[in-house]
Amino acid sequence: MNIMKKPLIGIIMGSSSDSRIMHGAAEILDEFGVPHEDQIISAHRTPTRLEEYAKHAEKNGFKVIIAGAGGAAHLPGMIASHTVLPVIGVPILVYNDKQQKKSAFGGLDSLLSISEMPSGSPVVTVGVNKAINAGIYALKILANESSNIRKMLKSHKEKQHKSVLKESQDLKRMGLKKFVKKKFK
Amino acid sequence: MNIMKKPLIGIIMGSSSDSRIMHGAAEILDEFGVPHEDQIISAHRTPTRLEEYAKHAEKNGFKVIIAGAGGAAHLPGMIASHTVLPVIGVPILVYNDKQQKKSAFGGLDSLLSISEMPSGSPVVTVGVNKAINAGIYALKILANESSNIRKMLKSHKEKQHKSVLKESQDLKRMGLKKFVKKKFK
Amino acid sequence: MNIMKKPLIGIIMGSSSDSRIMHGAAEILDEFGVPHEDQIISAHRTPTRLEEYAKHAEKNGFKVIIAGAGGAAHLPGMIASHTVLPVIGVPILVYNDKQQKKSAFGGLDSLLSISEMPSGSPVVTVGVNKAINAGIYALKILANESSNIRKMLKSHKEKQHKSVLKESQDLKRMGLKKFVKKKFK
Amino acid sequence: MNIMKKPLIGIIMGSSSDSRIMHGAAEILDEFGVPHEDQIISAHRTPTRLEEYAKHAEKNGFKVIIAGAGGAAHLPGMIASHTVLPVIGVPILVYNDKQQKKSAFGGLDSLLSISEMPSGSPVVTVGVNKAINAGIYALKILANESSNIRKMLKSHKEKQHKSVLKESQDLKRMGLKKFVKKKFK
Amino acid sequence: MNIMKKPLIGIIMGSSSDSRIMHGAAEILDEFGVPHEDQIISAHRTPTRLEEYAKHAEKNGFKVIIAGAGGAAHLPGMIASHTVLPVIGVPILVYNDKQQKKSAFGGLDSLLSISEMPSGSPVVTVGVNKAINAGIYALKILANESSNIRKMLKSHKEKQHKSVLKESQDLKRMGLKKFVKKKFK
Amino acid sequence: MNIMKKPLIGIIMGSSSDSRIMHGAAEILDEFGVPHEDQIISAHRTPTRLEEYAKHAEKNGFKVIIAGAGGAAHLPGMIASHTVLPVIGVPILVYNDKQQKKSAFGGLDSLLSISEMPSGSPVVTVGVNKAINAGIYALKILANESSNIRKMLKSHKEKQHKSVLKESQDLKRMGLKKFVKKKFK
Amino acid sequence: MNIMKKPLIGIIMGSSSDSRIMHGAAEILDEFGVPHEDQIISAHRTPTRLEEYAKHAEKNGFKVIIAGAGGAAHLPGMIASHTVLPVIGVPILVYNDKQQKKSAFGGLDSLLSISEMPSGSPVVTVGVNKAINAGIYALKILANESSNIRKMLKSHKEKQHKSVLKESQDLKRMGLKKFVKKKFK
Amino acid sequence: MNIMKKPLIGIIMGSSSDSRIMHGAAEILDEFGVPHEDQIISAHRTPTRLEEYAKHAEKNGFKVIIAGAGGAAHLPGMIASHTVLPVIGVPILVYNDKQQKKSAFGGLDSLLSISEMPSGSPVVTVGVNKAINAGIYALKILANESSNIRKMLKSHKEKQHKSVLKESQDLKRMGLKKFVKKKFK
Repeated sequence: MNIMKKPLIGIIMGSSSDSRIMHGAAEILDEFGVPHEDQIISAHRTPTRLEEYAKHAEKNGFKVIIAGAGGAAHLPGMIASHTVLPVIGVPILVYNDKQQKKSAFGGLDSLLSISEMPSGSPVVTVGVNKAINAGIYALKILANESSNIRKMLKSHKEKQHKSVLKESQDLKRMGLKKFVKKKFK
Repeated sequence: MNIMKKPLIGIIMGSSSDSRIMHGAAEILDEFGVPHEDQIISAHRTPTRLEEYAKHAEKNGFKVIIAGAGGAAHLPGMIASHTVLPVIGVPILVYNDKQQKKSAFGGLDSLLSISEMPSGSPVVTVGVNKAINAGIYALKILANESSNIRKMLKSHKEKQHKSVLKESQDLKRMGLKKFVKKKFK
Repeated sequence: MNIMKKPLIGIIMGSSSDSRIMHGAAEILDEFGVPHEDQIISAHRTPTRLEEYAKHAEKNGFKVIIAGAGGAAHLPGMIASHTVLPVIGVPILVYNDKQQKKSAFGGLDSLLSISEMPSGSPVVTVGVNKAINAGIYALKILANESSNIRKMLKSHKEKQHKSVLKESQDLKRMGLKKFVKKKFK
Repeated sequence: MNIMKKPLIGIIMGSSSDSRIMHGAAEILDEFGVPHEDQIISAHRTPTRLEEYAKHAEKNGFKVIIAGAGGAAHLPGMIASHTVLPVIGVPILVYNDKQQKKSAFGGLDSLLSISEMPSGSPVVTVGVNKAINAGIYALKILANESSNIRKMLKSHKEKQHKSVLKESQDLKRMGLKKFVKKKFK
Repeated sequence: MNIMKKPLIGIIMGSSSDSRIMHGAAEILDEFGVPHEDQIISAHRTPTRLEEYAKHAEKNGFKVIIAGAGGAAHLPGMIASHTVLPVIGVPILVYNDKQQKKSAFGGLDSLLSISEMPSGSPVVTVGVNKAINAGIYALKILANESSNIRKMLKSHKEKQHKSVLKESQDLKRMGLKKFVKKKFK
Repeated sequence: MNIMKKPLIGIIMGSSSDSRIMHGAAEILDEFGVPHEDQIISAHRTPTRLEEYAKHAEKNGFKVIIAGAGGAAHLPGMIASHTVLPVIGVPILVYNDKQQKKSAFGGLDSLLSISEMPSGSPVVTVGVNKAINAGIYALKILANESSNIRKMLKSHKEKQHKSVLKESQDLKRMGLKKFVKKKFK
Repeated sequence: MNIMKKPLIGIIMGSSSDSRIMHGAAEILDEFGVPHEDQIISAHRTPTRLEEYAKHAEKNGFKVIIAGAGGAAHLPGMIASHTVLPVIGVPILVYNDKQQKKSAFGGLDSLLSISEMPSGSPVVTVGVNKAINAGIYALKILANESSNIRKMLKSHKEKQHKSVLKESQDLKRMGLKKFVKKKFK
Repeated sequence: MNIMKKPLIGIIMGSSSDSRIMHGAAEILDEFGVPHEDQIISAHRTPTRLEEYAKHAEKNGFKVIIAGAGGAAHLPGMIASHTVLPVIGVPILVYNDKQQKKSAFGGLDSLLSISEMPSGSPVVTVGVNKAINAGIYALKILANESSNIRKMLKSHKEKQHKSVLKESQDLKRMGLKKFVKKKFK
């Protein structure tokens, strides 16, 4: 269902360890057949690439940049400083192998570092680790120019609606006791 | 001990994954023999069902609606916007299989999203994941019209009282050292 | 429009300085003509009155207790420990004459102290300083037994609806620029 | 410099008291000559208007909806539930006449209520009270289809750049001591 | 080394699940040979026992009450409301078998509920789960009347001092690399 | 009513600007006729005085040290490191002349810095700015050795009780509407 | 007492409104006679100047960069990304004319955005608005190469020590009651 | 590559359990061949060593002290009170064997206790558990006097840059889907 050829969305992240979370954005774009280009841009380890990337994105006609970052999470804001393209930030909270949060502040640090940009320099943010929502939001922006994507977004919404209805009917019929027993064992 | 036939309480939740927590409300209602109807209503995936559900609840004579939701947790407030029935919110914090909190904000996001409704549009909330307390509170409301339920609530309180007394006597007799050794292996 | 004679709602608060906030609950009950009895019960300065008050409330047929408290805010929970009547807590954040918050924790301390009751002992809470919402919620509970109050609640909702509509039409017609100029100077 | 006639942006807010903050979005759109329609939609006081407004927005070809709300701040998320148009949330923290924050949680409640939407239902948010940033972000989205707006955004950025440079030269020349003395009295 | 016969310290807790944490207080008192009486008093499940316990404590000559509680943690404050004996609160944060925190607020709810008592009704608190510190603090109070306990406290401090010195010498000699390798594998 | 001559309580604070808050502790001790010695000891500006002061306090037979500090608030913990005397910490949040909080963290920084001492080194804390409660708690400790102080504490409690009763009777008689009108105008 | 001619410290800030706070750093450097160069560098409005400034700082032999910023506060981290010079961050919380905090998060957003830099890219931070401490810390770094500055730092410390001693003696002599009366009226 | 013989950096920590985290600082210093001396200094268990250690550090020509501490984390501030040497604090959050955080406040307590030092007494802090960043920052300070270390810092930065570039090229070539599959399985 690949309806476009050239990447329309740039997905970037501050570190390769963010890729597991950012995958959520790629997945929904893939499902909609919207091509995207994925890169690692570290605001702190490759600061000179910020401007370069911004120019690359504009020159190649990207419509939206999705930027994920954890901790101090400067990436989304710094990319937005270098371009007028809309940037969607994804605050990232990575757990390590021992299930310990890698960031001590539960993602609040990253969320605020992305949202609290000064007046005049906007970045918008989705919820912590909600890369899929950044992907869908990018599709909403693309839908302004593509009735096809808008149609697909509506049928995506429709599917969600139906799936909840189906589950609700099961729950109503069974009652919580049986439903939980069936679902969790 | 089923003392009523028609559902008096509507239990709803935003997602089927909330059912394990919301089961706590159903359990206490079942114990008291109070019939309840359980459904999944997603404020975000099935928004048009909110009004419909509210009418359904009023028409069927529900006395209380218990609404559980996690994350942005709009469900309790939105149901309350559509009906004058009393709504009890349950902020939900789900852990995933790896014991990682699914919400990054420990339930505070959900608690505030439920409690901080604007003046004129009340929802009340119990503590995070305290679905059982929502169930008991619903029973307290029903008890205004049923001396039977009030009596059962009092004997339920009595039982709690006695069980604590019993444990305290054990602890007093054994002392903490032995008590802990016995209780935790 | 006084439709009942005997107090149906008990309004209590931990300190006389809470009265300015708790007045919001009284006002809406007065508007609905629902009689209420107002008292100061301090969990810390008059602890022995807690049980006494609970008995008084039950004996006099109160249907709901609205309990406001700031800081450690033990009052709502402790009253609920002594009765099976439904208790609605109001976390209170008082500002002093110099506009300094009297509580250092912005009401979060009180909100959590009310909501995070142990399993089996529910208190429900409205938002910080939202005494009016506690009043309306009490009316919702009463409405289970009074079609008159339910009707009044619906027309109260209707009025809110219309007033917003009216303002929205003004805003739409004027645009934000003129609307703000007119409204704030 | 009015380059379009029909509203392209819908600005909505939960209450007329939010208008002073939301004015920031209108101002920048006015500066860019982009027409917008302003309304008050209360998720709690006018819940049935949510769907109606969503249809109105789609039918009239709005490209972006900017939705401001304080407290529980359900408006942005609920509008997004009813449409696939991109919605930008503005968490609002209103101060009253006595400089007391009206919300007890400093806008954190509203920020999280907007950002922490469930997977599949995205709203994006700017910082607390940063309505101007929501306005600029809407312009960035429009710029995908209007090279004119993109050009204006770039020159807007340019102006910011120059104004900082100018101030920095003053500061460098004078030093902090003199600069502060001159600037703050 | 049992230097007294009658209990001088009352250790109470809100629930038997708190016993594992409160054991820390008992252990240090046992080590000092100071007799203590351990009970479970639930402010919410056995509210009428609060006054009774306070009288019991005074009549039996308890010098200090150590009260541990989690969640809304009303126990320390309510006991203090019924007696002029010094009460030391221990905010408790219990982890369940799956290493999930049982309280959603990391103990902050309990800490504030204990510390933020109204003016005139003091409870003091140690850190979250620091029952051992409550035990040592009780010993410090007893030491005002017992030069023996004071001497033991000083030698306890001395031992801590020496043990740190010893470890520091090891670390200084080995360096961090070897020290960590030896200590953690 | 000066029942003792030599200071029994040492009141210290980290800065002279803390004196306005710490006055609350002195006032209640004065009311009880308990002599106290007041000093400024800065953990950061006069670190070498910590040990010296601790020796001074022990040599002069102080029974309790009340230590107030704001910001990083190291004073209570550091004094406790140098003595086995019981130390009561008072987290201080100072407002400046423009009603701006001087500490950016609302006292939470100071509260945690005092309470979260390591195992083995206890300090206890009262609520933010609750110096009066530290004073009363010191009196509770003294009461272990003075039946006179215990008696005075009981009658102090009694007075609080009566004053609340009196206010409650006024409120009950007048109702909230009149009570608030009278009290706040 | 100007002991050096060329600027050794670069003071930068994100906005001219930060200058009032950053003045604190300049003042102490002026007092020590250490020349500094002051500039405004906005990470978001002048992003291309970051690298340029870093080169300027290195070329001119700056020893330390003090960087103040509020809100998302990317400046300190981004400068550190472009240079190996030590950077000291100052999280800034500005109050507006109406004493309202301009940032909704009390400086926590800025503090975390500065401190929580990824491993390998350090910035250090002082407390919120503590520009003076950043100045003194820069002097401590300079003192590694200047015995003169080290001597001055020691006598600065000495003065603080003496001033506290003097105040403490006043307080001890007068007692809190008289001291407060004299100091605050 | 050991370029110096005498220790230039003192690494201290409050407890031996902090050594695993503080190892990160030692590692980078070892990598750069900069000798360091490692000790355990407990502000609470060995308070008299604070001054002694400060003198030792100055006498031996240490250039920087890196001080790690968890919980109330008084160590960095107290060392800084005793010396004019630059101190870098490391807030420590230790997880126990069951992956439970040992501190209940996620490191926020320690971060604030280190950063919020009073005006005039600076400590700077890196992020929670970011000992490696403290190590690199110490190297940045040393680089002021050693062009060799500066050169090594630059090539360290270069290596980070290249490693990110390499990963980004892989990601761009493979796309997120394949990259994640390869990296995490």
